[in-house]
Amino acid sequence: MASNSFGNIFKITTWGESHGKAIGVVIDGCPSGLEINASDINEALALRQPGRNPYTSPRYEEDKAEILSGVFQGKTTGAPISILIPNKDADPSKYEPIKDLLRPGHANYTYLEKYGIFDYRGGGRASARETACRVAAGAIAKKFLEYNGIKVMAYIKQMGSIIAGLDEVDLDSIRSLTYQSPVFCPDAEASSSMMALVEKTKAEGESVGGIIEFIALSVPVGLGDPVYEKLEANLAHAMMGIPATKGFEIGSGFQSATMTGSKHNDLFFKELEGVQTKSNHAGGVLGGISSGMPIIGRVAFKPTSSIMKPQSTLTTGGDEAIFELPKGSRHDPCVAIRAVPIVEAMLSLVLADALLLKRCMKL
Amino acid sequence: MASNSFGNIFKITTWGESHGKAIGVVIDGCPSGLEINASDINEALALRQPGRNPYTSPRYEEDKAEILSGVFQGKTTGAPISILIPNKDADPSKYEPIKDLLRPGHANYTYLEKYGIFDYRGGGRASARETACRVAAGAIAKKFLEYNGIKVMAYIKQMGSIIAGLDEVDLDSIRSLTYQSPVFCPDAEASSSMMALVEKTKAEGESVGGIIEFIALSVPVGLGDPVYEKLEANLAHAMMGIPATKGFEIGSGFQSATMTGSKHNDLFFKELEGVQTKSNHAGGVLGGISSGMPIIGRVAFKPTSSIMKPQSTLTTGGDEAIFELPKGSRHDPCVAIRAVPIVEAMLSLVLADALLLKRCMKL
Amino acid sequence: MASNSFGNIFKITTWGESHGKAIGVVIDGCPSGLEINASDINEALALRQPGRNPYTSPRYEEDKAEILSGVFQGKTTGAPISILIPNKDADPSKYEPIKDLLRPGHANYTYLEKYGIFDYRGGGRASARETACRVAAGAIAKKFLEYNGIKVMAYIKQMGSIIAGLDEVDLDSIRSLTYQSPVFCPDAEASSSMMALVEKTKAEGESVGGIIEFIALSVPVGLGDPVYEKLEANLAHAMMGIPATKGFEIGSGFQSATMTGSKHNDLFFKELEGVQTKSNHAGGVLGGISSGMPIIGRVAFKPTSSIMKPQSTLTTGGDEAIFELPKGSRHDPCVAIRAVPIVEAMLSLVLADALLLKRCMKL
Amino acid sequence: MASNSFGNIFKITTWGESHGKAIGVVIDGCPSGLEINASDINEALALRQPGRNPYTSPRYEEDKAEILSGVFQGKTTGAPISILIPNKDADPSKYEPIKDLLRPGHANYTYLEKYGIFDYRGGGRASARETACRVAAGAIAKKFLEYNGIKVMAYIKQMGSIIAGLDEVDLDSIRSLTYQSPVFCPDAEASSSMMALVEKTKAEGESVGGIIEFIALSVPVGLGDPVYEKLEANLAHAMMGIPATKGFEIGSGFQSATMTGSKHNDLFFKELEGVQTKSNHAGGVLGGISSGMPIIGRVAFKPTSSIMKPQSTLTTGGDEAIFELPKGSRHDPCVAIRAVPIVEAMLSLVLADALLLKRCMKL
Repeated sequence: MASNSFGNIFKITTWGESHGKAIGVVIDGCPSGLEINASDINEALALRQPGRNPYTSPRYEEDKAEILSGVFQGKTTGAPISILIPNKDADPSKYEPIKDLLRPGHANYTYLEKYGIFDYRGGGRASARETACRVAAGAIAKKFLEYNGIKVMAYIKQMGSIIAGLDEVDLDSIRSLTYQSPVFCPDAEASSSMMALVEKTKAEGESVGGIIEFIALSVPVGLGDPVYEKLEANLAHAMMGIPATKGFEIGSGFQSATMTGSKHNDLFFKELEGVQTKSNHAGGVLGGISSGMPIIGRVAFKPTSSIMKPQSTLTTGGDEAIFELPKGSRHDPCVAIRAVPIVEAMLSLVLADALLLKRCMKL
Repeated sequence: MASNSFGNIFKITTWGESHGKAIGVVIDGCPSGLEINASDINEALALRQPGRNPYTSPRYEEDKAEILSGVFQGKTTGAPISILIPNKDADPSKYEPIKDLLRPGHANYTYLEKYGIFDYRGGGRASARETACRVAAGAIAKKFLEYNGIKVMAYIKQMGSIIAGLDEVDLDSIRSLTYQSPVFCPDAEASSSMMALVEKTKAEGESVGGIIEFIALSVPVGLGDPVYEKLEANLAHAMMGIPATKGFEIGSGFQSATMTGSKHNDLFFKELEGVQTKSNHAGGVLGGISSGMPIIGRVAFKPTSSIMKPQSTLTTGGDEAIFELPKGSRHDPCVAIRAVPIVEAMLSLVLADALLLKRCMKL
Repeated sequence: MASNSFGNIFKITTWGESHGKAIGVVIDGCPSGLEINASDINEALALRQPGRNPYTSPRYEEDKAEILSGVFQGKTTGAPISILIPNKDADPSKYEPIKDLLRPGHANYTYLEKYGIFDYRGGGRASARETACRVAAGAIAKKFLEYNGIKVMAYIKQMGSIIAGLDEVDLDSIRSLTYQSPVFCPDAEASSSMMALVEKTKAEGESVGGIIEFIALSVPVGLGDPVYEKLEANLAHAMMGIPATKGFEIGSGFQSATMTGSKHNDLFFKELEGVQTKSNHAGGVLGGISSGMPIIGRVAFKPTSSIMKPQSTLTTGGDEAIFELPKGSRHDPCVAIRAVPIVEAMLSLVLADALLLKRCMKL
Repeated sequence: MASNSFGNIFKITTWGESHGKAIGVVIDGCPSGLEINASDINEALALRQPGRNPYTSPRYEEDKAEILSGVFQGKTTGAPISILIPNKDADPSKYEPIKDLLRPGHANYTYLEKYGIFDYRGGGRASARETACRVAAGAIAKKFLEYNGIKVMAYIKQMGSIIAGLDEVDLDSIRSLTYQSPVFCPDAEASSSMMALVEKTKAEGESVGGIIEFIALSVPVGLGDPVYEKLEANLAHAMMGIPATKGFEIGSGFQSATMTGSKHNDLFFKELEGVQTKSNHAGGVLGGISSGMPIIGRVAFKPTSSIMKPQSTLTTGGDEAIFELPKGSRHDPCVAIRAVPIVEAMLSLVLADALLLKRCMKL
């Protein structure tokens, strides 16, 4: 229901197919008075653009967002902010040869069954192209968070079996290290290994999965709501709506299954800046409400469904067939890389919404 | 926002504190004509009741639900169904000694900060007591699913490092095997090991975490909505709103990070009953929409926060203190066990809602 | 959708049929820290109770609300407030004789067509009995408004062709005058005429319609949201959801059709207390947002559908029949009288919600 | 909340200011398979365009809608439909001289107070320009209704004290008669009088109010939901969100206040085509649910706030001032005329949403 909208007070609605004229997003509920300009958005968009380096898809989108409403004299007015991003590099003709095939790992089968019609040019609405709109909206949410002193970040924590080590990295420097790495991994050594893995994977016509970690710092106590709108529940909802995600965890996550209570419980103590906990297995939430500790969690991404190898499948009519990507198709060996700014955007949107809702809780 | 409600068309609202007079749930949007009686609900409630066997908390609630509205001559009328469950075994006096302490792993700190007031009798609204209402509502959702031929189930997949093996178990017999096991694990061998682990953990005054797997069978193609209301996103939202959860995954989950595309992609083929896939790494969803394959996923639970060991903490005033559960406190060494029917309930609620929304998608 | 809920942040969900065991309401989103007790609610309920004087229905309900959750040590905690009102004086047997007849002016035909089933005991869910829950919830919203200095009131402005004159009545004394009148009309002379009209109408087995005027004073500038959530749109939504309503107007209302712009425009001037307008044809809203002037509007109620005269109708099977109320049926000759506290309640709910939402609009 | 969205399943979100680059609407939840093209929308837009005849504002917009997404091969796909309408004839410079004045009858005062900033070019977001987006979306809703056999219409029922008589007009010919009249009144005689009134009003630099009546035919029984989402409540919400509206009524409306029950009750009888009522004071709804009789109601519009006469006012700084429209300003003497297609659009949106929701009510 209203499946193309996200959020309660700070609410977005996205639209557009991967190979249509344009895509866009309407942001409703952004507080008035926030300084915004197109470059804030375009800088964020640049980070998720394919083709920016050899480690992601060669489709070069060079997205330029246009703000059509809701900003006056450089500031938000409280009116809906409409952002439009033209689809410049869309060549739908190459999808003609595969339009009658069920694409392994893709959504055209389920869309066809659900709607009786599918815009087969690219992934249509199911394409990762839609996520550019999340990034554009997330850039505005992030400005609102920064105005409130909150910092957000995300990075590749794992690719295949390569795991980034961050124990010695200062939290405040993670974000800049991340975007210096072509594979968005702030651990230099792991970053090199991942680059090699991407190259090997690409050469084999294959793809590989990965895990993104996200962190929010300086989040005040009290964000998130009890029972069904717990902060981690809303984060899970947000992250599992990103294409290609298969898992979400907060704090200790799945590791908690093997822990004991005395190890897992984070003990309270007092710092100059207030109440803290000695460990952070909770990941910054207690009872669904932020505790003031860093919000930290992870999102698992499957290997890209589009690979350069032939795969057995069916036609939409039910006959056996071989699915092969058209010659010259773009191919993104690890979809998790480009998803880093998307995870950051979704994190920003959830926190901005929770920050506004918190204003309504007390007399 | 409206944080005590869940669902869109098939919508529930729960209320009540663990040590108040009663708890309850209002179900709005259940289709008319469904046969319902109190025993349907009470049977489900019996499964999550603590005290039913030595492996869960000795508080014996003996919940009896009363249906106060929405059912006439044994059938739902389309009006809201109000269910009330009295709190019989509530002794709030024992919470007096700890009312001024921050409880490690619990939510009283964050509630106090957010609301400026906390009902310290039991966990108040943050108590697992609230989940009885989810189970009551889930029992009705489950009847609606059964009417549509859909089966749902959940069980302990892992406790500590003990993992259940289910490769040789027929999917249709899992549910009955589950509820024959005192620890809700359908693998007899693992069940025995888990029982021993629970006893050992209890003897040590400790607690242990676990993982619940959930499955839905015979789900038609087309449930779930694109972009922000993907079926897996709504499942994640539902599951991560259950107390003590730390992670969610669907299909291959976090394992997908180490897989390649050619291994992960589920290839389409045709069976007598229609289109299927040779593997099910997707977990029954493609592009956020059910594919007709079994919906399968997992939820991670942290070890119970309440343990019988003393722990350092702070008073609500900020002074150092020792937190110790009052003598004779109930103690549930593995909260995941009782969460099995809760996971089943949330799965039912998500699917019932998606089944109704699907009716609106085509001309 | 979620048709038994009202509001966004300050949100209520009601349940219960007129002749079931009980009715009730869950209030979710009331800010924490508000002092509440059952007598606040019972005093409000007393005002709408039938049988309180000979001018309304003789069914004497003597409603006593029980607060089951959400209040601790006399204050709201931010948790959902569940209120239950038992149905004491419910005798469903008398509805047996008319259960297979379409009741003129009533909803049993449309409910039967929509749901395929109808709880024919009283009006089931369509009964005015449901409005007791609105009044209970409204009493809490009203306390929140009073905490913020806002005053609300409603009264009979017109019954049949008798129109109350209020030009010489001080706004602040209207509410107490209203509830001194058995027909809830603050104009003593009109009140007497209305009492006579009610008696005559009752003697004839007839019913009569009426118009309720509502006023809110000391409403700050800025409540209500542009475009689709204008304050007057939400008020209209609230009022037209009350049973038996046929019309809503704000400020000049339908009279505005015959006015010219120079007469209708309210001109701004400055008072000690700030910007005001010389007239208030707008009714306290400009562009859907409160202007600081009194919010004033009216709601039209049809004559009670239940009359003591025989009426031609159909059976549910489609045969011609005569509908007659069972001997000894309760009969409320002017439903608008009892609706006064209901209009006051809905006004309070809309303003409380708008007051909270306003907190989210600026940086 | 989400104040720029309307609807539940068939949901729209509008954006754009009167003098920005463009305005637009995103329609989410339109069922797949509906045939749509830009001319459907442009024909509807042409009806509300100012400047189409001398009786409305001379600003000639010549709106051309562009469909940017959600339609593939001429049919809706179930994806969000994004429609963009460029602002061609926008000259914001003329608003400079009045930017620091509170405009009588306008919203700039309340916007400034609420948001701290106001896009003073035209009415910004508060401008009637926004309603073009409602008309565009309504055109799609109307196609969906037509697919289901439902007809909708609206027309000027009253202007000043001139009242259209429609007793002898066939319901099916009303719509074509309406749009043949320059003042959208299907009664030829009243239409002439209204044209004279508009000319006189314009010559005097004045404006005049009006009443629009709306009708929906062949609406099946069962649309609308009990209690808070009654069909008339949602219609009232929809209509009172249109700029310049002051009142709403359904069926007998405010007249019902002076009627008796035996006159007001609509008696059931049986026709070949099913159950009907002998009169239709209810306006096609019983208990908030459509009864199969024509849906009929009225909306009151105040006289246009912009008049050509000088008016006393304040500056935004609080000083006394005279407000005068800039020379050459466009001036629409009766805003109700152009609102006819807007009322039709809102009626269509409410019914389309209710028609979809009805699918979820029964097993």
